[in-house]
Amino acid sequence: MPARRARGVSIEDVARAAGVSRQTVSNAINAPQRLRPETLDRVTELIREMGYSPDQSARSLRSGTRRIIAYTTPETDPANPNALMSGFLEALVAASGEVGYRILLVRPRPGQPQEKAIDEVIAGGGADAFLLSDVLDGDTRVEHLAAGGFPFAVFGRTGAGLPQSWVDLDSARAMADLVGLLAGRGHRHVGLLTMSLDQPWLRHRAEGFRAGVRGHGLTCVEATADDPESAVAAGRELLGGRPAPTALVVIDDWLAPAAYAAAQAEGLVVGADLAVAGFNDMPYAALLQPPLTTLRLPLRRIADALVGRLLTIIDDGVTPETGLLLPGEIVVRASLP
Amino acid sequence: MPARRARGVSIEDVARAAGVSRQTVSNAINAPQRLRPETLDRVTELIREMGYSPDQSARSLRSGTRRIIAYTTPETDPANPNALMSGFLEALVAASGEVGYRILLVRPRPGQPQEKAIDEVIAGGGADAFLLSDVLDGDTRVEHLAAGGFPFAVFGRTGAGLPQSWVDLDSARAMADLVGLLAGRGHRHVGLLTMSLDQPWLRHRAEGFRAGVRGHGLTCVEATADDPESAVAAGRELLGGRPAPTALVVIDDWLAPAAYAAAQAEGLVVGADLAVAGFNDMPYAALLQPPLTTLRLPLRRIADALVGRLLTIIDDGVTPETGLLLPGEIVVRASLP
Repeated sequence: MPARRARGVSIEDVARAAGVSRQTVSNAINAPQRLRPETLDRVTELIREMGYSPDQSARSLRSGTRRIIAYTTPETDPANPNALMSGFLEALVAASGEVGYRILLVRPRPGQPQEKAIDEVIAGGGADAFLLSDVLDGDTRVEHLAAGGFPFAVFGRTGAGLPQSWVDLDSARAMADLVGLLAGRGHRHVGLLTMSLDQPWLRHRAEGFRAGVRGHGLTCVEATADDPESAVAAGRELLGGRPAPTALVVIDDWLAPAAYAAAQAEGLVVGADLAVAGFNDMPYAALLQPPLTTLRLPLRRIADALVGRLLTIIDDGVTPETGLLLPGEIVVRASLP
Repeated sequence: MPARRARGVSIEDVARAAGVSRQTVSNAINAPQRLRPETLDRVTELIREMGYSPDQSARSLRSGTRRIIAYTTPETDPANPNALMSGFLEALVAASGEVGYRILLVRPRPGQPQEKAIDEVIAGGGADAFLLSDVLDGDTRVEHLAAGGFPFAVFGRTGAGLPQSWVDLDSARAMADLVGLLAGRGHRHVGLLTMSLDQPWLRHRAEGFRAGVRGHGLTCVEATADDPESAVAAGRELLGGRPAPTALVVIDDWLAPAAYAAAQAEGLVVGADLAVAGFNDMPYAALLQPPLTTLRLPLRRIADALVGRLLTIIDDGVTPETGLLLPGEIVVRASLP
């Protein structure tokens, strides 16, 4: 294994200049957490100044890790980015940074299947593990990573027979709790405005809503909408029913403005005549008039748990036997009378 | 240079299995854009299945690049992420992905200076270039990268005597255009609600506002606020002046709700008695009542230009001699009478 690189600076040269051992220089690159901050600073500064370039493959073989988590970042609209997933990425950067890992963003080229983009990163030795989000039923990325035996974890859930290296919000419980809050405030007949999409997280929320209604001895009506206009119409249909629901739960915050508009059209004042509650606590939820009661995801706790699971897989080769469900937090605002 | 890796699979083994040349396997890793998609897919699949691990340092020496851009992602609140910077990151992932580059997110460990985090990435050979954003006057990260001669570019601007590898919104021009729009609608006396922070982008906007006022022969008043409460008070102070401004420009969209509240407190209807315009086109701008006229940044064009500049530096070793200013887009909504 050549210690001397193309530019002629060896690890011994750096060690001599820094007045430390070869092992200390190696630690500065492969295990920075083992060094005192002052030593680490001095050595990394010299590595940069002297232009020392470590042998990456040798480094990988020695330390078994590049300390990089590849994250398949979901596509969004730059002019209106998904605040939930932006917040999750921020939590992930913070959580992984605390244990010395960095996040590599992976996005397929136009027309390239996700699995091929994943293979490119693995083939190039560019990451120690993968993290997936927005995982659907029978997600081929999960099956692909599981088949290849490459370390991975999922924000979401994996199916039976697959590695259970996942962490998710307990959406059903959160939604049942939201219904419980409404029952506690005296509501007996409640409405759910939902979407026709069969995404697992929407399904868990709807199931939780129904379980909450049953559990608290309430009755309910449901309607479906996939765009703002039809959501207003669906909201009016629910509110115009007899008996009329005294509370509307929307399955995602984006439907709340439509629920507010439907209430106004039916002559109802949200927060007085009608309760409205949402899900996700998007930044605009607090800006609505009245501000929206909604369910906040514990993004940092989710990210911490995912990174912890990945480290167990990377360092110990142990995959968790069960997934992990974390509780949400109901943020009560003036949309509830 | 050893072709055979620890796990015993060589590049020749993969080439033989795929029925392609050694060079084609190398291209699949180092220059995927040179291969037909079907070939690339077949080879990367075999690389993964056979467990072939290329020699990263040899690869770097051959191709001169790891095809990774390190981005010092600014810290934000996971519960309320900065939509502008989330949108920029999305644009950056898309722009770099189209030329075969991936984004590595770099965040200093708690208490670690930014320069040390940068050095760690460079020392580890983890990126071909750096991209910085949220660059302040005399930003030490810029000076550090410039001193080290490492390829970098800046969303923002760099000072005199530093490499001019930057791309920015022409904020002054954009703000002057916004004032021009108000002048065209008959406004003669306008107000600016600004912040006390001396960030370059805020300074450029304020300068542009004043230049627009002078250029169109208007008069103006200004007030400063750094939190929502004092912003309402500052807005009321401006609106209570004699002569009263007929239009309020806020230097950042976050001040718009305060301007709306100030108008209401003064008995003015925004969009009828008073014009309000903002800057950044944050997602909530369109949700305000009335929806806010504001300035949208061309995030994808900025990201494309930055990635283009980085490739010129990485591939040709040529640093642009001047920075690049791109125009914004005024999004006219009902907040203007």
